[in-house]
Amino acid sequence: MPELRKDPVTNRWVIIASDRVRRPSDFVREPVTIRGGRFCPFCPGNEKKTPPEVLSYRNGGGTNEPGWTVRVIPNKFPALRVEGTLERQGEGMYDKMDGIGAHEVIIESPDHDSTLGDLPEKQIESVLWAFRDRILDLKRDTRLRYILFFKNHGEIAGATLEHTHSQLIALPVVPRFVREEIDGARRYFDFKERCVYCDMERQDAASGIRVALETDRFLALCPYAPRFPFETWIIPRKHASHFETADAGLIENLAWVLRTLIRKLDRVLERPPYNWVLHTSPIHEAPLPHYHWHIEVIPHLTKVAGFEWGSGFYLNPTPPEEAARFLREAGLG
Amino acid sequence: MPELRKDPVTNRWVIIASDRVRRPSDFVREPVTIRGGRFCPFCPGNEKKTPPEVLSYRNGGGTNEPGWTVRVIPNKFPALRVEGTLERQGEGMYDKMDGIGAHEVIIESPDHDSTLGDLPEKQIESVLWAFRDRILDLKRDTRLRYILFFKNHGEIAGATLEHTHSQLIALPVVPRFVREEIDGARRYFDFKERCVYCDMERQDAASGIRVALETDRFLALCPYAPRFPFETWIIPRKHASHFETADAGLIENLAWVLRTLIRKLDRVLERPPYNWVLHTSPIHEAPLPHYHWHIEVIPHLTKVAGFEWGSGFYLNPTPPEEAARFLREAGLG
Repeated sequence: MPELRKDPVTNRWVIIASDRVRRPSDFVREPVTIRGGRFCPFCPGNEKKTPPEVLSYRNGGGTNEPGWTVRVIPNKFPALRVEGTLERQGEGMYDKMDGIGAHEVIIESPDHDSTLGDLPEKQIESVLWAFRDRILDLKRDTRLRYILFFKNHGEIAGATLEHTHSQLIALPVVPRFVREEIDGARRYFDFKERCVYCDMERQDAASGIRVALETDRFLALCPYAPRFPFETWIIPRKHASHFETADAGLIENLAWVLRTLIRKLDRVLERPPYNWVLHTSPIHEAPLPHYHWHIEVIPHLTKVAGFEWGSGFYLNPTPPEEAARFLREAGLG
Repeated sequence: MPELRKDPVTNRWVIIASDRVRRPSDFVREPVTIRGGRFCPFCPGNEKKTPPEVLSYRNGGGTNEPGWTVRVIPNKFPALRVEGTLERQGEGMYDKMDGIGAHEVIIESPDHDSTLGDLPEKQIESVLWAFRDRILDLKRDTRLRYILFFKNHGEIAGATLEHTHSQLIALPVVPRFVREEIDGARRYFDFKERCVYCDMERQDAASGIRVALETDRFLALCPYAPRFPFETWIIPRKHASHFETADAGLIENLAWVLRTLIRKLDRVLERPPYNWVLHTSPIHEAPLPHYHWHIEVIPHLTKVAGFEWGSGFYLNPTPPEEAARFLREAGLG
């Protein structure tokens, strides 16, 4: 019997249609492979072919030269621009503002042939430090309200260059998905005086059935009402609303968890395309007792989500309990 | 300069990145073609290979025999089931209910080789009558609260069978996208005492710049803050919250508008894959002064929306004013 499940944060109902396709081998898979062989602007030696870097961690070399381990550059085709004033305007009943913001690329490794799961832990740790450093820097721009970090891995997940990288978009507005989560979490807090993510962490850690991976500091879990097969969230076990407050120990552990989760997904689903998005609080908000930063990882397994785009309504053939079991049993943890 | 635009109903901000890809020829296109040649359970003569029909319009033949012009059948792999009771349950902090509902397929024509845009107007009119008849029938089931009609056209838009068809999912809950639109429209109504869609219709009809197609009864417009390139909404010019209240004249005109819009998209974008979703009110609600039914059509042009899935945040390279101009200039109207 299919089930309708409600996400406790956003009140989104999802159909878990467990009598349809469900096991990893039932999905049409197109493993992401690194082809190489073409000119790559993200490779060392080609630094002059990208906009000048805004940040790099280096073993040697000067700015915009080889020797970096992680390099952050403005997107060559930015969705938003840093220059200008934040002009707000009406057009009759409609509202708009100038597209002020930043759009940057975090090149996660000098090595063209490695994917995120192949990188050493220390390298992923550096990437996470770069996220934090970019938040702390961009935060000084008072026009900006939100910084969105995400990764598109594989062509069908939206990657246009295969060299491993993630992106950030800094925005003068708070995107709706964050606003909805924060509002939903606040309603839960008003009712229970507890953070909904902390409650989730407690209940799911205790039952274990939706846990893909756990450490002292993080829980990687397949959420109760996932939109997509094998959707997995990485939740810090200790409450914190802002990613940028993470300390060295937390970052170190997160690097291990993220790497291990990606390796598990790579093993169970044969190197699937995926996206992940960092969900954190708006940069100028004080610490929130009701919101809890986390990372949402979404493999692309079903060929489509066309209808889902248009309706915001989700039909998921894989119960999270089964997805979590496959991920747990994949080892590597 | 890119622009941030706000949808007046949902308050969703969208980046219109007009200095990136924008013209129809800039998109990677994979025209939808009908391949034929395989066994098709939707073709006349194969009626016994599908679950028994729940509705058919016929020129001849008996139930589950050839002779139909439009045929509605339960989905062979339904996401929801009609049988059972609507058991609601908690699982600790989580909420679920049995997946009670209906999942049906509307076979839009006996002809395997025609797409929606190729069908005669009268045929599309019959399809729309079938939608209305199914709503009126399913409405009698008091467990159900919403009926979602949608079409996936082309494999990458989610169609698993190429024979032209649309689907309905009848749900015991109101999906979040509808709830959000209704809530947003209510906030606008509280503030202005006017329907936000009626205001949109007035302003956009007057300016004309976002109008793709218009008749006395409908406006097909590229909305001010579209999530996707060439996203187009068909809005009835006279206020109505429920699709099923449409009269014969309206249905007749809608068939023409839908067909013409699809033909325009087919011409401008070379037979793109697309989805459309009927946005209408929950079935048991009284007529709403603040909500306005409409159809949202979304062509699939960009290879991806991976990141958009995960974030609910949209980056659209094509300003709606340009999309509308291309559609107007495509003729056929």
